Amino acid sequence: MRLSRYFLPVLKENPAEAQIVSHRLMLRAGMIKQQTAGIYSWLPLGFKVLKRIEQIVHEEQERAGHIALLMPTLQPADLWRESGRYEDYGQEMLRIKDRHGRDMLYGPTNEEMITDIFRSHVGSYKDLPLTLYHVQWKFRDEVRPRFGVMRGREFYMKDGYTFDVDKASALHAYNRHMVAYLRTYERMGLTAIPMRADSGPIGGDDTHEFLVLAETGESEVFYDQAVTELTLGERAVDFDNRDEVAAICDEFTTLYARTDETHDEALFNAVPEDRRRVGRGIEVGQIFYFGTKYSEAMGATVVTQDGNRVPVEMGSHGIGVSRLLGAIIEASHDDKGIIWPEGVTPFHAGIVNLKQGDAEADAACESLYKALAGAGLEALYDDRSERAGAKFATMDLIGLPWRITVGPRGLAKGVVELTSRRSGESVEMSPEAAVARLVEIYAQHR
Amino acid sequence: MRLSRYFLPVLKENPAEAQIVSHRLMLRAGMIKQQTAGIYSWLPLGFKVLKRIEQIVHEEQERAGHIALLMPTLQPADLWRESGRYEDYGQEMLRIKDRHGRDMLYGPTNEEMITDIFRSHVGSYKDLPLTLYHVQWKFRDEVRPRFGVMRGREFYMKDGYTFDVDKASALHAYNRHMVAYLRTYERMGLTAIPMRADSGPIGGDDTHEFLVLAETGESEVFYDQAVTELTLGERAVDFDNRDEVAAICDEFTTLYARTDETHDEALFNAVPEDRRRVGRGIEVGQIFYFGTKYSEAMGATVVTQDGNRVPVEMGSHGIGVSRLLGAIIEASHDDKGIIWPEGVTPFHAGIVNLKQGDAEADAACESLYKALAGAGLEALYDDRSERAGAKFATMDLIGLPWRITVGPRGLAKGVVELTSRRSGESVEMSPEAAVARLVEIYAQHR
Repeated sequence: MRLSRYFLPVLKENPAEAQIVSHRLMLRAGMIKQQTAGIYSWLPLGFKVLKRIEQIVHEEQERAGHIALLMPTLQPADLWRESGRYEDYGQEMLRIKDRHGRDMLYGPTNEEMITDIFRSHVGSYKDLPLTLYHVQWKFRDEVRPRFGVMRGREFYMKDGYTFDVDKASALHAYNRHMVAYLRTYERMGLTAIPMRADSGPIGGDDTHEFLVLAETGESEVFYDQAVTELTLGERAVDFDNRDEVAAICDEFTTLYARTDETHDEALFNAVPEDRRRVGRGIEVGQIFYFGTKYSEAMGATVVTQDGNRVPVEMGSHGIGVSRLLGAIIEASHDDKGIIWPEGVTPFHAGIVNLKQGDAEADAACESLYKALAGAGLEALYDDRSERAGAKFATMDLIGLPWRITVGPRGLAKGVVELTSRRSGESVEMSPEAAVARLVEIYAQHR
Repeated sequence: MRLSRYFLPVLKENPAEAQIVSHRLMLRAGMIKQQTAGIYSWLPLGFKVLKRIEQIVHEEQERAGHIALLMPTLQPADLWRESGRYEDYGQEMLRIKDRHGRDMLYGPTNEEMITDIFRSHVGSYKDLPLTLYHVQWKFRDEVRPRFGVMRGREFYMKDGYTFDVDKASALHAYNRHMVAYLRTYERMGLTAIPMRADSGPIGGDDTHEFLVLAETGESEVFYDQAVTELTLGERAVDFDNRDEVAAICDEFTTLYARTDETHDEALFNAVPEDRRRVGRGIEVGQIFYFGTKYSEAMGATVVTQDGNRVPVEMGSHGIGVSRLLGAIIEASHDDKGIIWPEGVTPFHAGIVNLKQGDAEADAACESLYKALAGAGLEALYDDRSERAGAKFATMDLIGLPWRITVGPRGLAKGVVELTSRRSGESVEMSPEAAVARLVEIYAQHR
């Protein structure tokens, strides 16, 4: 993308309404625009990151064998009357009447609707296990929306629902989600720690939240420092293998890590003192096993191998897709702006032309731009007639992890400069070598 | 995808509520489920086609130089009060009050919001031309939703908005959209004819609808048969070249083609009699030039090169993404089911194992499945223990354009059968040749 043809409305001033750094940086980098309290437009740069995050979520769900569908944003109230949640949900549910006076609502979550889909089409253990998920806009009418997309009202969420014939299978589905989520967050450059949690209005027995450590987090967290050093990495996981998947979950949940909701002082004190940490965390996902709460209420049953009809065992599993943009920025920025992890960056690299209009510099930039595109990498080429300082400031603000700087002085020596946003280090190399280096870097983030 | 692990709830019976073939086939093929009047869940197969269509739309918008963003589904009523449409829009607008009693609405279209984004960030001719578009869920509270996704209430739509400094530039943006849309529809296997139209509640001077010919279309259409033979094909278009783009528009709009709204009997009678056609059409898109209707009302101005401040010239351009699934099926089916054009098929090919459990047949299917995946083609492998007839019926119903049939008799001769869904023709060839043939076919649909 050539910046002269893009729509990147960066702000020079810090917006007064933003209380936390991610909100401030998303506004300043021209990623979002508030349309009314807690409801945002995703401007082109923000939309690109949102799509990258969604894509990673889809890929990791698919890898775990889960099936994507898409439920609508609006739901009939009657479904929620069946589960009893229509009355229970309170004012966070946005209730709507259509032109015929029928009660509807903007879905805050989808347990009822997916249970309805299941009971309409599935009736036998032979069709299980089944995990259906979608990534869709949801609405919670927060009394005081704030922190930008971190606590918005209209938000984008992945929610998946598992259907199993018995509890052991349902717990395997739970574990499968934990492992899939671990890799999902790692690919986004995040350390997201699974912590035992309370189940809240969804209901349920087993539940873990995934917390990203950040000073601005809404939850107080207590953890063993060693838990932050665990990584799933590139290991191949057989998601059908219950023992293998359970062992990974054990590995990630044995060390102490709890939110204030479930914190146990005695257990925490058993952690070696030099590893005990108290901090704050941002919730970026949650998994639940809740058994037959919805299937019993709504009559979603299956015939077992023995010929009995039983309510299906269920769980639900969510990732806050739009919220993740905020969480990633909270975890990865400096005083100049955002620092995107390679896995979610909106463009793979920025190209800064130090002397726009200079025939040689322009040609070198064009050629770099095309070479990167040819290698499957998308560059943002700052082809504006701005001074170098302004171009660098924009690139630093929007946080592309790699920048290639092209100017007459370097070209005279046959080199350009490749700069890491994170470390600030610059290395001179030929344009071809810079492209090759970026190809190598991004090969690890496919 | 292995069918044994997929969620494809096909129906054996014709659903009574479906009046038109696309609705019937989408229900029978397990693509959609109605949740309440005019609101559908997109089951896995339907969701995949929806995504393919969306992807083509994005690619062709990008090729034309347009920029993707994403506006929210809910909008504050105040924006619509500025344009005067809040009162005008009538009962099709779904009006909502939030917990604080603020008036909101579920966006039926986005002229007001995009104008708000524009006026907040753009003020100079230097930032023009600019085209911003999104693909987002919208809502129109139709009094009598019907025909499945063809006239739903919650629907998925691409809407793009053009901003230009003067009328000539705005008309170029209009033409650019016409050409981009022509290629978009062609890639989906559709003949969509641009026809002069009325502007309706959006307002505007120039407007064309794109109509797909189908007996069940809601509009009566009058056209010169020769117009259906025009194709854009693979020609490279320079979207910045006004004359080139205008010439293509002339090519596609000179022959007579009108809906009943704008039909002119005298002009129609000037068409050679043997080429005069009267039929029905489904609207799958519309482009509008409306000048300064919204920019004047909402104060969206730019400073021109001469230093004057003028309201920006605008247009809006829509494609009915969810509706397209219905339109494609109306245009491409037979009595056995859907026939997907290659460009939008949910899977590139089906694999039917005639003897599940036979070691050799199973191994051959697995190997084919992997070879296709390795070539970037996604197969739906029917690995269920069903009889051949049932497997063929399912494949015919869901409409994958190519099927590979694998059985012991063929394997003894070293061959499998490659069958075209459209022609019904089968050819025996080695598994390797079948993969190579499919790679060749789909190379034309990337």
